[in-house]
Amino acid sequence: MSAPLQTIPARRGKAARVKAGQRITVVNTHGTQVVDTWAFSADDLDEWMAMEASRAWFLKLAAAVGDSFVTNHRRPILTLLEDTSGGAHDTLIAPCDAPRYRLLGVEGHHDNCRDNLHAALAALGVTAPATPSPLNLFMNIPWTADGRLSWGEPVSTPGSYALFRAEMDLVVAFSACPQDILPINGRTGQTTEAHFSIE
Amino acid sequence: MSAPLQTIPARRGKAARVKAGQRITVVNTHGTQVVDTWAFSADDLDEWMAMEASRAWFLKLAAAVGDSFVTNHRRPILTLLEDTSGGAHDTLIAPCDAPRYRLLGVEGHHDNCRDNLHAALAALGVTAPATPSPLNLFMNIPWTADGRLSWGEPVSTPGSYALFRAEMDLVVAFSACPQDILPINGRTGQTTEAHFSIE
Repeated sequence: MSAPLQTIPARRGKAARVKAGQRITVVNTHGTQVVDTWAFSADDLDEWMAMEASRAWFLKLAAAVGDSFVTNHRRPILTLLEDTSGGAHDTLIAPCDAPRYRLLGVEGHHDNCRDNLHAALAALGVTAPATPSPLNLFMNIPWTADGRLSWGEPVSTPGSYALFRAEMDLVVAFSACPQDILPINGRTGQTTEAHFSIE
Repeated sequence: MSAPLQTIPARRGKAARVKAGQRITVVNTHGTQVVDTWAFSADDLDEWMAMEASRAWFLKLAAAVGDSFVTNHRRPILTLLEDTSGGAHDTLIAPCDAPRYRLLGVEGHHDNCRDNLHAALAALGVTAPATPSPLNLFMNIPWTADGRLSWGEPVSTPGSYALFRAEMDLVVAFSACPQDILPINGRTGQTTEAHFSIE
Protein backbone atom coordinates (compact mmCIF):
# COMPACT_ATOMS: atom_id res chain seq x y z
CA MET A 1 0.00 0.00 0.00
CA SER A 2 2.30 2.72 -1.24
CA ALA A 3 -0.44 5.04 -2.46
CA PRO A 4 -1.58 7.78 -0.06
CA LEU A 5 -4.41 6.86 2.28
CA GLN A 6 -7.60 8.85 1.89
CA THR A 7 -10.03 9.27 4.76
CA ILE A 8 -13.63 8.16 4.89
CA PRO A 9 -14.68 10.39 7.80
CA ALA A 10 -16.68 8.84 10.61
CA ARG A 11 -20.40 8.82 9.74
CA ARG A 12 -19.73 10.28 6.29
CA GLY A 13 -19.25 9.22 2.66
CA LYS A 14 -16.45 9.61 0.16
CA ALA A 15 -16.29 8.83 -3.57
CA ALA A 16 -13.43 8.63 -6.05
CA ARG A 17 -12.75 7.94 -9.71
CA VAL A 18 -10.79 4.77 -10.49
CA LYS A 19 -9.29 3.57 -13.77
CA ALA A 20 -9.54 0.00 -15.02
CA GLY A 21 -6.62 -2.01 -13.64
CA GLN A 22 -6.09 0.19 -10.58
CA ARG A 23 -6.23 -1.36 -7.15
CA ILE A 24 -8.42 -0.14 -4.33
CA THR A 25 -7.51 -0.96 -0.74
CA VAL A 26 -10.14 -0.36 1.93
CA VAL A 27 -8.64 -0.31 5.41
CA ASN A 28 -10.65 -0.95 8.55
CA THR A 29 -8.41 1.40 10.48
CA HIS A 30 -9.97 0.85 13.89
CA GLY A 31 -11.17 -2.68 13.18
CA THR A 32 -14.83 -2.21 13.97
CA GLN A 33 -16.19 -0.01 11.22
CA VAL A 34 -18.59 -1.18 8.52
CA VAL A 35 -17.96 0.51 5.16
CA ASP A 36 -20.90 0.41 2.73
CA THR A 37 -19.43 0.30 -0.77
CA TRP A 38 -20.88 1.02 -4.21
CA ALA A 39 -19.36 1.08 -7.68
CA PHE A 40 -20.74 2.58 -10.88
CA SER A 41 -19.46 2.48 -14.43
CA ALA A 42 -17.71 5.79 -15.13
CA ASP A 43 -19.28 5.79 -18.59
CA ASP A 44 -22.87 5.18 -17.53
CA LEU A 45 -24.13 5.68 -13.99
CA ASP A 46 -27.09 3.43 -14.85
CA GLU A 47 -24.64 0.53 -14.72
CA TRP A 48 -23.72 -0.36 -11.16
CA MET A 49 -22.31 -3.15 -9.06
CA ALA A 50 -25.33 -5.34 -8.30
CA MET A 51 -25.35 -7.76 -5.37
CA GLU A 52 -28.19 -9.83 -6.90
CA ALA A 53 -26.23 -10.30 -10.14
CA SER A 54 -22.97 -10.91 -8.25
CA ARG A 55 -24.47 -13.70 -6.13
CA ALA A 56 -25.71 -15.32 -9.36
CA TRP A 57 -22.18 -14.93 -10.79
CA PHE A 58 -20.14 -16.46 -7.95
CA LEU A 59 -23.03 -18.58 -6.59
CA LYS A 60 -22.37 -17.74 -2.96
CA LEU A 61 -23.91 -15.49 -0.33
CA ALA A 62 -20.55 -13.75 0.05
CA ALA A 63 -17.47 -13.35 -2.13
CA ALA A 64 -14.13 -15.02 -1.48
CA VAL A 65 -10.68 -13.91 -2.66
CA GLY A 66 -10.61 -14.31 -6.44
CA ASP A 67 -14.33 -13.62 -6.94
CA SER A 68 -15.58 -10.75 -9.08
CA PHE A 69 -18.58 -8.58 -8.40
CA VAL A 70 -20.57 -7.81 -11.54
CA THR A 71 -22.88 -5.03 -12.64
CA ASN A 72 -26.56 -5.05 -13.48
CA HIS A 73 -25.26 -5.54 -17.06
CA ARG A 74 -23.40 -8.69 -15.91
CA ARG A 75 -19.93 -7.22 -16.44
CA PRO A 76 -17.16 -7.67 -13.84
CA ILE A 77 -16.50 -4.39 -12.06
CA LEU A 78 -14.49 -5.25 -8.90
CA THR A 79 -12.43 -8.36 -8.13
CA LEU A 80 -11.48 -9.18 -4.55
CA LEU A 81 -7.72 -9.85 -4.62
CA GLU A 82 -6.72 -9.90 -0.97
CA ASP A 83 -8.57 -9.84 2.32
CA THR A 84 -7.02 -9.77 5.78
CA SER A 85 -10.27 -8.88 7.56
CA GLY A 86 -11.73 -12.29 8.22
CA GLY A 87 -13.98 -12.11 5.18
CA ALA A 88 -17.29 -11.03 6.71
CA HIS A 89 -18.58 -8.75 3.95
CA ASP A 90 -22.35 -8.64 3.69
CA THR A 91 -24.21 -8.70 0.35
CA LEU A 92 -27.72 -9.11 1.79
CA ILE A 93 -28.72 -5.98 3.70
CA ALA A 94 -29.91 -2.56 2.53
CA PRO A 95 -27.93 0.58 3.40
CA CYS A 96 -29.24 2.41 6.45
CA ASP A 97 -31.49 5.33 5.58
CA ALA A 98 -33.70 7.93 7.25
CA PRO A 99 -36.79 5.66 7.49
CA ARG A 100 -34.63 2.95 9.08
CA TYR A 101 -33.63 5.27 11.92
CA ARG A 102 -37.20 6.47 12.40
CA LEU A 103 -38.20 2.82 12.86
CA LEU A 104 -35.40 2.48 15.42
CA GLY A 105 -36.91 5.35 17.41
CA VAL A 106 -34.71 8.24 16.27
CA GLU A 107 -36.50 11.58 16.07
CA GLY A 108 -35.09 14.15 13.67
CA HIS A 109 -31.99 13.75 11.56
CA HIS A 110 -29.63 10.79 11.78
CA ASP A 111 -26.62 10.36 9.50
CA ASN A 112 -27.21 7.44 7.15
CA CYS A 113 -25.42 5.53 4.41
CA ARG A 114 -27.99 6.26 1.73
CA ASP A 115 -27.60 10.03 2.08
CA ASN A 116 -23.82 9.60 2.42
CA LEU A 117 -23.71 7.81 -0.95
CA HIS A 118 -25.52 10.55 -2.79
CA ALA A 119 -23.62 13.36 -1.04
CA ALA A 120 -20.29 11.69 -1.89
CA LEU A 121 -21.27 11.31 -5.54
CA ALA A 122 -22.48 14.91 -5.66
CA ALA A 123 -19.08 16.06 -4.36
CA LEU A 124 -17.57 14.34 -7.43
CA GLY A 125 -20.13 15.98 -9.68
CA VAL A 126 -22.04 12.84 -10.59
CA THR A 127 -25.58 11.66 -9.88
CA ALA A 128 -26.78 8.09 -9.43
CA PRO A 129 -30.34 7.37 -10.54
CA ALA A 130 -31.02 4.94 -7.68
CA THR A 131 -29.54 3.51 -4.49
CA PRO A 132 -28.20 0.04 -5.33
CA SER A 133 -27.91 -2.60 -2.66
CA PRO A 134 -24.35 -2.08 -1.35
CA LEU A 135 -21.42 -4.35 -0.64
CA ASN A 136 -21.19 -3.93 3.12
CA LEU A 137 -17.49 -4.34 3.81
CA PHE A 138 -16.58 -5.65 7.28
CA MET A 139 -20.31 -6.09 8.11
CA ASN A 140 -20.94 -9.38 9.83
CA ILE A 141 -24.40 -10.77 9.09
CA PRO A 142 -24.20 -14.46 10.00
CA TRP A 143 -26.71 -16.84 8.44
CA THR A 144 -27.84 -20.19 9.77
CA ALA A 145 -28.51 -23.37 7.81
CA ASP A 146 -32.24 -22.65 8.04
CA GLY A 147 -31.76 -19.13 6.67
CA ARG A 148 -31.95 -16.95 9.78
CA LEU A 149 -29.87 -13.77 9.79
CA SER A 150 -28.55 -11.75 12.72
CA TRP A 151 -26.73 -8.47 13.37
CA GLY A 152 -23.23 -9.63 14.23
CA GLU A 153 -20.33 -7.61 15.58
CA PRO A 154 -17.31 -7.12 13.31
CA VAL A 155 -14.70 -9.87 13.13
CA SER A 156 -12.12 -7.58 11.49
CA THR A 157 -9.05 -6.31 13.35
CA PRO A 158 -7.53 -2.80 13.34
CA GLY A 159 -5.64 -2.17 10.10
CA SER A 160 -7.08 -5.15 8.31
CA TYR A 161 -8.11 -4.52 4.73
CA ALA A 162 -9.79 -5.73 1.55
CA LEU A 163 -7.99 -5.15 -1.77
CA PHE A 164 -9.87 -4.97 -5.09
CA ARG A 165 -8.91 -4.61 -8.74
CA ALA A 166 -11.07 -2.30 -10.84
CA GLU A 167 -12.26 -4.18 -13.92
CA MET A 168 -13.52 -1.05 -15.72
CA ASP A 169 -13.26 2.70 -15.32
CA LEU A 170 -15.55 3.33 -12.39
CA VAL A 171 -16.71 5.60 -9.63
CA VAL A 172 -16.41 4.02 -6.20
CA ALA A 173 -18.32 5.37 -3.20
CA PHE A 174 -17.91 4.51 0.46
CA SER A 175 -19.88 5.30 3.59
CA ALA A 176 -18.47 4.81 7.09
CA CYS A 177 -21.74 3.47 8.45
CA PRO A 178 -23.22 5.72 11.18
CA GLN A 179 -25.29 2.92 12.71
CA ASP A 180 -24.91 3.52 16.45
CA ILE A 181 -28.09 1.83 17.69
CA LEU A 182 -27.41 -1.75 16.60
CA PRO A 183 -23.96 -3.20 17.46
CA ILE A 184 -23.03 -3.62 13.78
CA ASN A 185 -20.00 -1.32 14.24
CA GLY A 186 -18.78 -3.05 17.39
CA ARG A 187 -20.18 -1.91 20.70
CA THR A 188 -23.33 0.18 20.48
CA GLY A 189 -22.68 3.86 19.87
CA GLN A 190 -19.25 3.42 18.31
CA THR A 191 -18.64 4.85 14.83
CA THR A 192 -15.19 5.59 13.45
CA GLU A 193 -13.37 6.71 10.34
CA ALA A 194 -11.88 4.29 7.81
CA HIS A 195 -9.40 4.74 4.97
CA PHE A 196 -8.80 3.75 1.38
CA SER A 197 -6.10 4.05 -1.24
CA ILE A 198 -6.07 3.83 -5.04
CA GLU A 199 -2.93 2.80 -6.86
CA MET B 1 -60.03 -18.15 -4.83
CA SER B 2 -63.34 -16.85 -6.14
CA ALA B 3 -61.85 -14.02 -8.20
CA PRO B 4 -61.23 -14.74 -11.89
CA LEU B 5 -57.81 -16.13 -12.76
CA GLN B 6 -55.67 -14.00 -15.02
CA THR B 7 -52.96 -15.52 -17.18
CA ILE B 8 -49.26 -14.80 -17.06
CA PRO B 9 -48.44 -16.17 -20.51
CA ALA B 10 -45.45 -18.49 -20.84
CA ARG B 11 -42.23 -16.48 -21.26
CA ARG B 12 -44.09 -13.17 -20.83
CA GLY B 13 -44.95 -10.58 -18.21
CA LYS B 14 -48.20 -9.20 -16.83
CA ALA B 15 -48.89 -6.31 -14.46
CA ALA B 16 -51.98 -5.18 -12.58
CA ARG B 17 -53.17 -2.49 -10.18
CA VAL B 18 -54.05 -3.63 -6.66
CA LYS B 19 -55.73 -1.70 -3.84
CA ALA B 20 -54.55 -1.82 -0.22
CA GLY B 21 -56.22 -4.74 1.53
CA GLN B 22 -56.82 -6.78 -1.62
CA ARG B 23 -55.42 -10.28 -1.82
CA ILE B 24 -53.21 -11.54 -4.61
CA THR B 25 -52.98 -15.26 -5.28
CA VAL B 26 -50.19 -16.48 -7.57
CA VAL B 27 -50.82 -19.99 -8.83
CA ASN B 28 -48.08 -22.27 -10.10
CA THR B 29 -50.51 -23.85 -12.52
CA HIS B 30 -48.16 -26.49 -13.87
CA GLY B 31 -46.01 -26.72 -10.75
CA THR B 32 -42.66 -26.01 -12.34
CA GLN B 33 -42.75 -22.36 -13.31
CA VAL B 34 -40.74 -19.62 -11.63
CA VAL B 35 -42.63 -16.30 -11.46
CA ASP B 36 -40.45 -13.24 -10.95
CA THR B 37 -42.51 -10.73 -8.97
CA TRP B 38 -42.17 -7.00 -8.40
CA ALA B 39 -44.34 -4.47 -6.57
CA PHE B 40 -44.28 -0.68 -6.75
CA SER B 41 -46.20 1.95 -4.81
CA ALA B 42 -49.08 3.13 -6.99
CA ASP B 43 -48.40 6.68 -5.81
CA ASP B 44 -44.66 6.75 -6.53
CA LEU B 45 -42.92 4.29 -8.82
CA ASP B 46 -39.63 5.22 -7.11
CA GLU B 47 -40.85 3.25 -4.12
CA TRP B 48 -40.63 -0.48 -4.73
CA MET B 49 -40.51 -3.79 -2.91
CA ALA B 50 -36.82 -4.21 -2.02
CA MET B 51 -35.36 -7.60 -1.22
CA GLU B 52 -32.38 -6.05 0.65
CA ALA B 53 -34.73 -4.07 2.92
CA SER B 54 -37.09 -7.05 3.32
CA ARG B 55 -34.29 -9.38 4.47
CA ALA B 56 -33.31 -6.72 7.03
CA TRP B 57 -36.99 -6.54 8.11
CA PHE B 58 -37.72 -10.26 8.62
CA LEU B 59 -34.07 -11.23 9.25
CA LYS B 60 -34.15 -14.30 7.04
CA LEU B 61 -32.94 -15.26 3.58
CA ALA B 62 -36.53 -16.10 2.62
CA ALA B 63 -39.96 -15.12 3.92
CA ALA B 64 -42.31 -17.43 5.79
CA VAL B 65 -46.09 -17.16 6.13
CA GLY B 66 -46.83 -14.04 8.17
CA ASP B 67 -43.79 -12.11 6.98
CA SER B 68 -44.08 -8.79 5.15
CA PHE B 69 -41.92 -7.57 2.32
CA VAL B 70 -41.05 -3.90 2.61
CA THR B 71 -40.13 -1.16 0.19
CA ASN B 72 -36.93 0.83 -0.24
CA HIS B 73 -38.72 3.32 2.06
CA ARG B 74 -39.12 0.55 4.70
CA ARG B 75 -42.90 0.37 4.43
CA PRO B 76 -44.71 -3.00 4.27
CA ILE B 77 -46.04 -3.60 0.76
CA LEU B 78 -46.91 -7.33 0.53
CA THR B 79 -47.56 -9.81 3.35
CA LEU B 80 -47.37 -13.55 2.69
CA LEU B 81 -50.60 -15.00 4.12
CA GLU B 82 -50.69 -18.55 2.75
CA ASP B 83 -48.29 -20.75 0.84
CA THR B 84 -49.00 -24.26 -0.42
CA SER B 85 -45.94 -24.38 -2.71
CA GLY B 86 -43.30 -25.68 -0.32
CA GLY B 87 -41.97 -22.21 0.36
CA ALA B 88 -38.98 -22.03 -1.98
CA HIS B 89 -39.17 -18.37 -3.01
CA ASP B 90 -35.82 -16.82 -3.82
CA THR B 91 -34.83 -13.31 -2.70
CA LEU B 92 -31.17 -13.50 -3.75
CA ILE B 93 -30.90 -13.71 -7.53
CA ALA B 94 -31.23 -11.05 -10.25
CA PRO B 95 -33.91 -11.36 -12.92
CA CYS B 96 -32.68 -12.91 -16.14
CA ASP B 97 -31.81 -10.35 -18.79
CA ALA B 98 -30.30 -10.10 -22.27
CA PRO B 99 -26.65 -10.07 -21.07
CA ARG B 100 -27.35 -13.16 -18.96
CA TYR B 101 -28.44 -15.13 -22.02
CA ARG B 102 -25.48 -13.92 -24.07
CA LEU B 103 -23.21 -15.27 -21.30
CA LEU B 104 -25.11 -18.58 -21.53
CA GLY B 105 -24.27 -18.77 -25.25
CA VAL B 106 -27.52 -17.50 -26.76
CA GLU B 107 -27.05 -15.52 -29.98
CA GLY B 108 -29.74 -12.98 -30.82
CA HIS B 109 -32.92 -12.35 -28.87
CA HIS B 110 -34.02 -14.41 -25.88
CA ASP B 111 -37.12 -13.61 -23.85
CA ASN B 112 -36.11 -12.42 -20.38
CA CYS B 113 -37.69 -11.33 -17.12
CA ARG B 114 -36.17 -7.87 -17.12
CA ASP B 115 -37.73 -6.94 -20.46
CA ASN B 116 -40.96 -8.67 -19.41
CA LEU B 117 -41.20 -6.43 -16.34
CA HIS B 118 -40.86 -3.23 -18.31
CA ALA B 119 -43.19 -4.39 -21.10
CA ALA B 120 -45.84 -5.39 -18.57
CA LEU B 121 -45.61 -2.01 -16.83
CA ALA B 122 -45.76 -0.21 -20.18
CA ALA B 123 -48.97 -2.08 -20.99
CA LEU B 124 -50.46 -0.53 -17.82
CA GLY B 125 -49.15 2.88 -18.81
CA VAL B 126 -46.53 3.17 -16.08
CA THR B 127 -42.73 3.33 -16.16
CA ALA B 128 -40.32 2.09 -13.51
CA PRO B 129 -37.06 4.01 -13.15
CA ALA B 130 -34.99 0.88 -12.45
CA THR B 131 -35.17 -2.90 -12.30
CA PRO B 132 -35.41 -3.87 -8.63
CA SER B 133 -34.18 -7.24 -7.46
CA PRO B 134 -37.33 -9.40 -7.71
CA LEU B 135 -39.07 -11.83 -5.41
CA ASN B 136 -38.62 -15.02 -7.40
CA LEU B 137 -41.71 -17.04 -6.55
CA PHE B 138 -41.32 -20.82 -6.74
CA MET B 139 -37.60 -20.44 -7.55
CA ASN B 140 -35.52 -22.91 -5.58
CA ILE B 141 -32.05 -21.57 -4.80
CA PRO B 142 -30.78 -23.76 -1.95
CA TRP B 143 -28.01 -22.41 0.27
CA THR B 144 -25.54 -24.38 2.34
CA ALA B 145 -24.29 -23.58 5.83
CA ASP B 146 -21.07 -22.25 4.27
CA GLY B 147 -23.00 -19.96 1.91
CA ARG B 148 -22.87 -21.83 -1.39
CA LEU B 149 -25.86 -21.40 -3.71
CA SER B 150 -27.13 -23.68 -6.48
CA TRP B 151 -29.76 -23.68 -9.21
CA GLY B 152 -32.38 -26.05 -7.84
CA GLU B 153 -35.42 -27.47 -9.55
CA PRO B 154 -38.84 -26.35 -8.30
CA VAL B 155 -40.35 -28.07 -5.27
CA SER B 156 -43.84 -26.71 -5.97
CA THR B 157 -46.68 -28.91 -7.22
CA PRO B 158 -49.28 -28.16 -9.95
CA GLY B 159 -51.91 -25.77 -8.65
CA SER B 160 -49.97 -24.78 -5.56
CA TYR B 161 -50.03 -21.08 -4.75
CA ALA B 162 -48.76 -18.19 -2.66
CA LEU B 163 -51.33 -15.71 -1.31
CA PHE B 164 -50.41 -12.12 -0.39
CA ARG B 165 -52.21 -9.15 1.13
CA ALA B 166 -51.46 -5.76 -0.43
CA GLU B 167 -50.40 -3.35 2.32
CA MET B 168 -50.70 -0.23 0.13
CA ASP B 169 -52.15 0.68 -3.26
CA LEU B 170 -49.62 -0.86 -5.60
CA VAL B 171 -48.73 -2.06 -9.06
CA VAL B 172 -47.72 -5.70 -9.14
CA ALA B 173 -45.78 -7.17 -12.06
CA PHE B 174 -45.07 -10.81 -12.85
CA SER B 175 -42.84 -12.57 -15.35
CA ALA B 176 -43.20 -16.27 -16.17
CA CYS B 177 -39.46 -16.82 -16.32
CA PRO B 178 -38.27 -17.88 -19.79
CA GLN B 179 -35.10 -19.52 -18.50
CA ASP B 180 -34.84 -22.68 -20.62
CA ILE B 181 -31.08 -23.28 -20.38
CA LEU B 182 -30.72 -23.85 -16.64
CA PRO B 183 -33.19 -26.29 -14.99
CA ILE B 184 -34.71 -23.56 -12.81
CA ASN B 185 -38.17 -24.16 -14.34
CA GLY B 186 -37.99 -27.93 -13.99
CA ARG B 187 -36.39 -29.92 -16.76
CA THR B 188 -34.27 -27.91 -19.16
CA GLY B 189 -36.26 -26.28 -21.93
CA GLN B 190 -39.58 -26.24 -20.11
CA THR B 191 -41.37 -22.92 -19.68
CA THR B 192 -45.09 -22.64 -18.96
CA GLU B 193 -47.81 -20.15 -18.14
CA ALA B 194 -48.90 -19.33 -14.59
CA HIS B 195 -51.95 -17.53 -13.20
CA PHE B 196 -52.95 -14.99 -10.60
CA SER B 197 -56.10 -13.51 -9.11
CA ILE B 198 -56.85 -10.30 -7.23
CA GLU B 199 -59.78 -10.14 -4.84
